[in-house]
Amino acid sequence: MTRTPPPPLGAFPHVARLQTRWMDNDLYGHVNNVVYYSYFDTLIAEFMIHQAGFDPFDAPVVGVAVETGCRFHSSIRYPEQIDAGLRVGRLGTTSVRWEIGIFKAGEPDVAAADGHFVHVFVDRTTQRPVPIPDDLRRIMTTLQR
Amino acid sequence: MTRTPPPPLGAFPHVARLQTRWMDNDLYGHVNNVVYYSYFDTLIAEFMIHQAGFDPFDAPVVGVAVETGCRFHSSIRYPEQIDAGLRVGRLGTTSVRWEIGIFKAGEPDVAAADGHFVHVFVDRTTQRPVPIPDDLRRIMTTLQR
Amino acid sequence: MTRTPPPPLGAFPHVARLQTRWMDNDLYGHVNNVVYYSYFDTLIAEFMIHQAGFDPFDAPVVGVAVETGCRFHSSIRYPEQIDAGLRVGRLGTTSVRWEIGIFKAGEPDVAAADGHFVHVFVDRTTQRPVPIPDDLRRIMTTLQR
Amino acid sequence: MTRTPPPPLGAFPHVARLQTRWMDNDLYGHVNNVVYYSYFDTLIAEFMIHQAGFDPFDAPVVGVAVETGCRFHSSIRYPEQIDAGLRVGRLGTTSVRWEIGIFKAGEPDVAAADGHFVHVFVDRTTQRPVPIPDDLRRIMTTLQR
Repeated sequence: MTRTPPPPLGAFPHVARLQTRWMDNDLYGHVNNVVYYSYFDTLIAEFMIHQAGFDPFDAPVVGVAVETGCRFHSSIRYPEQIDAGLRVGRLGTTSVRWEIGIFKAGEPDVAAADGHFVHVFVDRTTQRPVPIPDDLRRIMTTLQR
Repeated sequence: MTRTPPPPLGAFPHVARLQTRWMDNDLYGHVNNVVYYSYFDTLIAEFMIHQAGFDPFDAPVVGVAVETGCRFHSSIRYPEQIDAGLRVGRLGTTSVRWEIGIFKAGEPDVAAADGHFVHVFVDRTTQRPVPIPDDLRRIMTTLQR
Repeated sequence: MTRTPPPPLGAFPHVARLQTRWMDNDLYGHVNNVVYYSYFDTLIAEFMIHQAGFDPFDAPVVGVAVETGCRFHSSIRYPEQIDAGLRVGRLGTTSVRWEIGIFKAGEPDVAAADGHFVHVFVDRTTQRPVPIPDDLRRIMTTLQR
Repeated sequence: MTRTPPPPLGAFPHVARLQTRWMDNDLYGHVNNVVYYSYFDTLIAEFMIHQAGFDPFDAPVVGVAVETGCRFHSSIRYPEQIDAGLRVGRLGTTSVRWEIGIFKAGEPDVAAADGHFVHVFVDRTTQRPVPIPDDLRRIMTTLQR
């Protein structure tokens, strides 16, 4: 199996330091594959909340995950910390493709995992797709490479 | 965005009924996207344990996730139950691609989500790839379509 | 340390079979202590939803946890299943003390863990305590011993 | 219901800043009660690892939870951060009672929750109780008040 090598941390315009938890480790002594998606989820929500003023509790438009994926290159284990990188791939009218890199803190050259997360924005009440609000779109464009 | 429609439950040779938990629902009132991967994880482990006698605590060869992915088509919410379908896609020497369908219990025609999970089998001690053990491989072939 | 022995499964009027998940096991190869509370949470919610018609999505009155606790007697590990027993201890005007026993499926004599969960019922909007609705109270009394 | 008021953050000799995650919020829009125990778990493990050189992967003696409990005073919600305080209550030959306070970051006077966690130390192989190793005991005494 040959794979495109994952990008280094420097390829991601936004970076956040994330903590791991005891429970993240599974029987095999490393962070369970499922938990990486929780890092993705949290990284993206935090970016939208803190950089674009998105309010998950009241916003009339919310992002719904329609596709996610992750490739695992090496393992991470609690109590290690994570540097998570975020950039925006395809930016459509109602959807955005986020791209994420997960790095062991202090090892920015080789990603432990990389993945993507496609959000479709929908009206909170009707759940029908709507254009991405301007303030969110504007901040998303700053993450395009 | 047009996507290949997901297969119906009948396309999966192995099916298990899975429970949801209160905590699976997130702020938006449906099962959080991350949790679907826990269903995948559990479905596959259970199949290997109960159908092929795999012992996750002692087996000399263990499966390590190298890639996972999921497409979300409609939402599920606790306390609904799930029918999870499993089949085997590509079966290599050291790796296997599992394909999974997630259905609201009693709705076998339209998948709520579908995904994949690629395992590479490695020696428990050295963590180097090794051929899939014969008993596991044999049972995997029964899931090929 | 001497402790009051936990009650057997027969001491609980309501029993549900719960599944464990791969991720429930932690580094030490058994279900992590945190996860037991998720069993409590799910057991109680399910009882209220299915036995008393409680609707967590729309009910004007919701239960808020104000105190929980658990004693661990022996370990459980995925893929084992659980028989969870539920009864009602103190039943006040606005609060209820649920008592829970966690048993390895098929071993009803010796609890692996036992615990409690105190709910205060509050108005969904104001979050102020309100009397437990009659239909809930009635079904709770059936669990008193 | 009258309760002993929880201690302020200043009553805890060790304090760590903990992150919340998107998934921590449940349907009711605040951190689910179960997740607080994951904060406890992580706080204690981290203290033992970083302050006393405890190695959860190889240590011959490990801590097993025999009792945990939590009282909830007010809610916390993602994306808020947490200041978690830790002190040692009863310190026995083979067991220790940790006491924990959970505070919304920046609000050190009023705990959102407080709880306890009793560890019994056991031989990793035999799982029989053994005296707490000296280096761990020494560091635990620094947390006594």
